[in-house]
Amino acid sequence: MYDVIIVGGGVIGSSIAFQLSKRDYQVLIIEKDEIGQKASRAAAGMLGAQNELKSDSPLSSLSLQSRAMFPALAEELKSLSGIDIELLQSGILRIAQTKSESTRLKQAFAHQQESGEEALWLSGEQVKEKEPAINNAITGGLYMANDGQVNAPLFTKALAQSAVSLGADILEYTEVQEFLTENNHITGVNTTNGTFLADTVITAGGAWSNWLWEKTSVPLDLYPVKGECFSIRGNEHLITSSIFSESCYLVPKAGGRVIVGATQRPHNMDQSVPLEGLHSLMTSALQLVPELKHAKWETAWSGHRPQTADSLPYMDEHPEIQGLWLASGHFRNGILLAPLTGLLMADYIEGKPVDKAFGFQRRTHKEVHL
Amino acid sequence: MYDVIIVGGGVIGSSIAFQLSKRDYQVLIIEKDEIGQKASRAAAGMLGAQNELKSDSPLSSLSLQSRAMFPALAEELKSLSGIDIELLQSGILRIAQTKSESTRLKQAFAHQQESGEEALWLSGEQVKEKEPAINNAITGGLYMANDGQVNAPLFTKALAQSAVSLGADILEYTEVQEFLTENNHITGVNTTNGTFLADTVITAGGAWSNWLWEKTSVPLDLYPVKGECFSIRGNEHLITSSIFSESCYLVPKAGGRVIVGATQRPHNMDQSVPLEGLHSLMTSALQLVPELKHAKWETAWSGHRPQTADSLPYMDEHPEIQGLWLASGHFRNGILLAPLTGLLMADYIEGKPVDKAFGFQRRTHKEVHL
Amino acid sequence: MYDVIIVGGGVIGSSIAFQLSKRDYQVLIIEKDEIGQKASRAAAGMLGAQNELKSDSPLSSLSLQSRAMFPALAEELKSLSGIDIELLQSGILRIAQTKSESTRLKQAFAHQQESGEEALWLSGEQVKEKEPAINNAITGGLYMANDGQVNAPLFTKALAQSAVSLGADILEYTEVQEFLTENNHITGVNTTNGTFLADTVITAGGAWSNWLWEKTSVPLDLYPVKGECFSIRGNEHLITSSIFSESCYLVPKAGGRVIVGATQRPHNMDQSVPLEGLHSLMTSALQLVPELKHAKWETAWSGHRPQTADSLPYMDEHPEIQGLWLASGHFRNGILLAPLTGLLMADYIEGKPVDKAFGFQRRTHKEVHL
Amino acid sequence: MYDVIIVGGGVIGSSIAFQLSKRDYQVLIIEKDEIGQKASRAAAGMLGAQNELKSDSPLSSLSLQSRAMFPALAEELKSLSGIDIELLQSGILRIAQTKSESTRLKQAFAHQQESGEEALWLSGEQVKEKEPAINNAITGGLYMANDGQVNAPLFTKALAQSAVSLGADILEYTEVQEFLTENNHITGVNTTNGTFLADTVITAGGAWSNWLWEKTSVPLDLYPVKGECFSIRGNEHLITSSIFSESCYLVPKAGGRVIVGATQRPHNMDQSVPLEGLHSLMTSALQLVPELKHAKWETAWSGHRPQTADSLPYMDEHPEIQGLWLASGHFRNGILLAPLTGLLMADYIEGKPVDKAFGFQRRTHKEVHL
Repeated sequence: MYDVIIVGGGVIGSSIAFQLSKRDYQVLIIEKDEIGQKASRAAAGMLGAQNELKSDSPLSSLSLQSRAMFPALAEELKSLSGIDIELLQSGILRIAQTKSESTRLKQAFAHQQESGEEALWLSGEQVKEKEPAINNAITGGLYMANDGQVNAPLFTKALAQSAVSLGADILEYTEVQEFLTENNHITGVNTTNGTFLADTVITAGGAWSNWLWEKTSVPLDLYPVKGECFSIRGNEHLITSSIFSESCYLVPKAGGRVIVGATQRPHNMDQSVPLEGLHSLMTSALQLVPELKHAKWETAWSGHRPQTADSLPYMDEHPEIQGLWLASGHFRNGILLAPLTGLLMADYIEGKPVDKAFGFQRRTHKEVHL
Repeated sequence: MYDVIIVGGGVIGSSIAFQLSKRDYQVLIIEKDEIGQKASRAAAGMLGAQNELKSDSPLSSLSLQSRAMFPALAEELKSLSGIDIELLQSGILRIAQTKSESTRLKQAFAHQQESGEEALWLSGEQVKEKEPAINNAITGGLYMANDGQVNAPLFTKALAQSAVSLGADILEYTEVQEFLTENNHITGVNTTNGTFLADTVITAGGAWSNWLWEKTSVPLDLYPVKGECFSIRGNEHLITSSIFSESCYLVPKAGGRVIVGATQRPHNMDQSVPLEGLHSLMTSALQLVPELKHAKWETAWSGHRPQTADSLPYMDEHPEIQGLWLASGHFRNGILLAPLTGLLMADYIEGKPVDKAFGFQRRTHKEVHL
Repeated sequence: MYDVIIVGGGVIGSSIAFQLSKRDYQVLIIEKDEIGQKASRAAAGMLGAQNELKSDSPLSSLSLQSRAMFPALAEELKSLSGIDIELLQSGILRIAQTKSESTRLKQAFAHQQESGEEALWLSGEQVKEKEPAINNAITGGLYMANDGQVNAPLFTKALAQSAVSLGADILEYTEVQEFLTENNHITGVNTTNGTFLADTVITAGGAWSNWLWEKTSVPLDLYPVKGECFSIRGNEHLITSSIFSESCYLVPKAGGRVIVGATQRPHNMDQSVPLEGLHSLMTSALQLVPELKHAKWETAWSGHRPQTADSLPYMDEHPEIQGLWLASGHFRNGILLAPLTGLLMADYIEGKPVDKAFGFQRRTHKEVHL
Repeated sequence: MYDVIIVGGGVIGSSIAFQLSKRDYQVLIIEKDEIGQKASRAAAGMLGAQNELKSDSPLSSLSLQSRAMFPALAEELKSLSGIDIELLQSGILRIAQTKSESTRLKQAFAHQQESGEEALWLSGEQVKEKEPAINNAITGGLYMANDGQVNAPLFTKALAQSAVSLGADILEYTEVQEFLTENNHITGVNTTNGTFLADTVITAGGAWSNWLWEKTSVPLDLYPVKGECFSIRGNEHLITSSIFSESCYLVPKAGGRVIVGATQRPHNMDQSVPLEGLHSLMTSALQLVPELKHAKWETAWSGHRPQTADSLPYMDEHPEIQGLWLASGHFRNGILLAPLTGLLMADYIEGKPVDKAFGFQRRTHKEVHL
C-alpha cells in the first residue's frame, strides 16, 4: 500500500518521485524497462529555456522557472546520490547561416528583449570570436548566456537515486496493464508483477502514456517524435557553448565529447538509427564546425519525445477518475521542465489548483497512432 | 491487405511465415522489437528431442518429427538466405553426478529404450573417455547421438530472411494493440503503426501473447520463465557434445565458444542478469568441466521462455473468433519445435484438423501474471 | 621446442599454421593480441582476384590461383572447425559513374579479355537490371562473376581453429621482443611470456612486422594503410553482388548486412574512426544505392593493411639469418591471398625455391615510419 | 620541439603533464593507445593511503601526502576540464572474517595508532551497525575514515584534459620505438609517427616501461600484475564505504554501481578475463555481502599493475642518459600516488634532489619477463 504510484521511471516520473519523497509520501515508481533508459537517456540535456521562448506560450515562464531551479537542485542531488549531473551554464548560441534564418533569428532576438531575458545579438564576426571553430558562412548569432545543459542520463539517475535515498521504491521490468478503480476513484494498478494499491496514481510514461489512457474515457493525443543522435570525442574542446542551428545542434560534454542531434520523425516508434538520419546530421555538423572531421566516432542512438497536438505538456487529473494524474507531453524539453514539473505535480496532489493551460479540455479528439 | 498476419517475429512466428510463404500466402510479420531479439536470441539452440522425451507426453513424437526436419531445412535456409544455421548433430550427453541423479537418469534411459530411440548408457569411465574434460565425479551418462544443436539467433534470422525472400513483409518496432473483428471473425489488427487487414491472424508472441489475448474471451495461462545464460570462448574445443546436468548445460558452439545455461525463474520479466544466477551457473559449469576455468569471459544475457500450466504449447484457433490463431507456449523447446510448428500451423490454416492435445480446452482458468 | 614458430595470428599466419599442421609440423602461433583481431577482422572479405588484375603484375596469377582454392578450403575448414566461412561466389560488379571512370573501366575490361578471364561489360541499363537498387547515374559496369567474398573474421578464426585441431598451439597476448640466433641461424624468440625455441620462425605480423625486422640487418619498407569501414543491416537484400566504385565498395553479407568501405590513410596507426572518413563513405554509399538510407546503423571500425613500396607482398627468407622468414605486405588482398600464401610458405620451408618477385632484393632502403 | 616529452598517457603521465603545464612547460604526451585506457581505466579508484600503511615503508608518508592533495585537485580539475572525478571521502573499512585475519588486522590497527593516523577498531557488531549489508561472520573491522575513492577513468581523463587546456599536446596511437641521445644526453624519441625532439623525456608507461628501457644500459625489474574486476549495479546503495577483505574489495560508485576486485596474476599480460578469476571474485563478494545477489550484472575487465621487486615505484633519472626519466612501478596505488608523483617529478626536473628510496640503485638485476 503506497501513497503514490508513479507509472514511468523517466526524468519526469523520477522528478515527481523525488519531490513527493521530500514531502514524506511513500512512493513507488513502476518502470517497464529500467530507470531512465528511453527518451531521458537519449536527450542531449540542453536547458534551452530562452531558446524555446515563444511570445505567447504558457510554457515560457515555466521554462525559465524550471531552469532557475537547476543550480540548487544539482547540489542537492550530488549530496543525496553522489551523482554530479554535469550542470554547465555555458549558454546556448543559436546561429543563422542564410538571410532567411537571420531574419527568423532577429525576430527571436526581438522577443528575447521584450521578455526582458538576457540575450546578445552577435554578428558573423562576433560569432567567430566567441566560437572560432564555427565555419565562416555565419550571418549572425543569438547568444543566451543563461541557458545551459546537464548530462541527461545522469540527471535522471540522480533524481531516482535521491528519491530512493529518501524512501521511494522502484520496480523495474514491470508493465502496468490496467488501472483499478472504485466509484470513479483510482485504487491501484494491475501489473505484470501483480497488483499494487494506492489512491493516487501518476502516469509519467511519455510517449507510452497513450496506451494506458486509451482504455479510460479520456483518450489522449500524445504521439512520439523520434530523434536520432550521435556522439564523437576528442582530447580538446572545439566548442564551449551549445550551438543550435536550424539543421542540427552540437552540445559539448565533459571530457571532449560532443553530442550531435537531432532528427524529428513524428509517429515513429522504431528504435533503430537509419543511415539517412545519421548522414544528414553528420553533413550539417561538419558544415557547421569543419574541424569536427578529426573527432573520433563514438556511437549513435535514438529516442522518442512525447509530443502533443498543441506542443504543450499535460499536467492534470483525470476528469472522471479521481486520483489518476497525467504528467506527459514535454516533447523535447523534458529535461529542462522536469524540476518544475516535479514540484507542480506535488503541489497539485496536495490541492493546489492545476493550471488549465496544461489541462485536458484542450486535447484534440482525433485518433492518434503512436 | 494480407492473407495472414503473424504477430511476433520470434522463431515460431518466423517459421510459420516461412512455411506459409512457401505456399504462396501473402504474409506480414508484425514484431514489437526486432526479429528474433527475445527468447529466440537467448536460446542455446539445443535440439533435445530425446533429452525431453517423457513417456506419456504428446510432445515426444512432435519433438522427434521436428528434429528430423533440420538437416533438409538447414540446406534450404542456406540457399534462400545465405545463412548457415550451424546445425551440429553431435549428440547430447546427459550426466549424473549423484546416486539419485543416476537413478533418475537410468529411468530416462529405460524410457529411451521403450521408445525405440537410439540411446547409449555410459559408465563414469565411458563418460570420461567420450568427454575427457568432464570431472571425475560422474556416476554415469546417457548419450543421445541423434540430438544436436543449431545457432538459435541465426536460425531465427534465416527463417525470417527466407520468408522475406519468398515475398513476406516484416514490420518491426510495431506493437499490436487490439484485434479487429466482425461477426466473430478476425478482420485485422490495430497497431502503433496503423491498421492492417487480414482474415487470418496468428499470435506467436511467446510469453507476450497473454496481453493480447486477455482482451478476448479466452484468457490464457501462459507465463514467462526467465533464464540466464553466459558464454565463454577459447581456441580449442574442450567438449564436443552438448552436456546436460541437473544444474546446468554446456553447449559447444563454432569457434570455441561455449554457452552455459540456464536458470529458471517463473513469472519474471526482468531482463537484467542478477549476480546470483550468474554465479550459480559458473559454479556448476566449473564443477562439471574444471578446465573451463581458463576460458575467456564473453558475455551474459537473459531470455523469457513461454510456459503453460501443463507444459504443452498451444496451437489452436480461438473458439469464438474465427481466423484468430495462437502458436505459443513452447517453453524451452521453441527452437526444436519451430520447424514442425510452422508446418502444422500452415496445415491447420488450410483446414487440417488441429491436435486437441494442444488446444484451448485444456487451459486452466486461474489468473496468471506475466 | 617447436618445428615452426609463426609470429602473428592474422589470416596469413593462421593460413600458414594450417598448411604446416596438415604436413605434421609442430607449430606455435604467437599473437600479441588475440587471433584475427586486427586487419583480418576489419576486412570486408572480398575475393577480388580479377578486380585486382593488373596487366603486368606478378600478383595476378597468384590471386587467381588463391581464389580457386576457396571452395575446397571452405569445405575442409567447416569439417575441421565447424565454422562456415560464408563463401559467396556472387561476383563483383565494378561500376563507373563518370566518363573518365568509364574509360578506365573499359581499359580494365580490355585487360580482363586479354587475360582470358570471364568478365562481362554492362551498359548503364544492364547494371540497373542486374542490381535495381543502384542509382541511375551509372555509365557502365564490369561484372566479374567468378570473384566473390567470405566472412573475413570467421575465415581467420576457422584457419586458426583448424590448425589447433591438427595439433598447433596458440599463445595470445604475447609480444615477440627479439629473435634469437646462433651462427646466423634462427634458434627461437624472446617474448613477454618467456623464450620459445624453433629453427624456423615465420614473421606474419602485417604492418607490425617492421618493428621486429628493423633490429635485423634487413630493414623493411612495410607501412600501414589505415582503412575505415561501417556496416548496416536490413531484413532484405538490396544488392546481391559486391559493388565496387572508385569512391567506396558495398559488400552484401548473410542476414541482410552490408559492409561499406574503405578509406585509405597511409602511415597511420590510429585505431579510431574519424567523423570525416565515416561521413565520406556514407555519402558515397547513399549516392550509389539510395535505398540504403532506410538501412539500420550497426557499427564502424578501422583496420591497418600492410602495404609495401611496390604494392607486392614479401614471401622470402632473411638473406643473413637462416630459418627466419617473412610473409607480410599483402595490402588489401590478405584474405584473397591467404590460402595460396599458406601453401607457398609451407613449400618454401620444405625447400621449394622462392619466387624472386616477392623477395627482399626489391625492397627500397628509405626510412619508413609505421 | 617540446620542453618535455612524456611517454605514456596513463594516470601517472597525465598527472606529470598537468603539473608541468601549470609551470608553463611545453609538454607532449605520447600514448600508444588512447589516454587512460589500460591500468588507469581498470582501477577501482580506492585512495587507500592508510590501508596501505606499512610501518617502515617510505611509501607511507607519500601516500598520506598524495591523499591530502585530492580535495583541492578535484576542484581544480572540475574547473579546468568540466569533469567531476567523483571524489568520495567515505572511508575504507577493512574487515576480518577469521581469527588469523583478525590478528593481522589488529596489527595493522596498532600500526595506524603509532602512525598517529585516525583509525577506528570495530567489533563484529559495530561493523554490522556501520554496514548492515555485510554478513554476520565478521570478527572485526578497521575503519579508516580519511581514506576514500575517485572514479579512476574520469580522474585520468580530467588530468589529461586539464593539461591540454593549459597547452599540452597529446599524440595517441603512437609507439615510441627508441630514445635519441647525443653525448649521453636525451634529445628526443623515434616513434611510429616520426621523430620528436626534447631534452627531457619522462617514461611513464607502467608495466610497458621495461621494453623501452631494456635497450638502455639500465634494465628494469618492472613486471605486470594482472588484475580482474567486475561491476554490478542496483537502484540503492547496499554499502557506503569501500570494503576491503583479504579475498576481495567492494567499492561503491555513484549511481548504485559497485566495483568488485581484484585478482593478482604476476607476469601476465593477457587482457582477457578467465572464468576462474571472475568466479572466485563473485564467490568472495557474495559471501561478504549476500544481498549483492540481486544486483544486476554489468561487465568484467582486466588491467595490469606495474610492480617492482621491492614494491616501490621508480622516480629517478637515468644514471647514464641525462634528461631521461622514469616514473613507473606504482603497482596498485597509481591513482592514489598520481597527484604527488606529478608534483615530485616536476620538482625533480627543476633540480630538486630525487628521493633515493625511489631510485635505480635498488633495482634487482635478474632477468624479468613482462
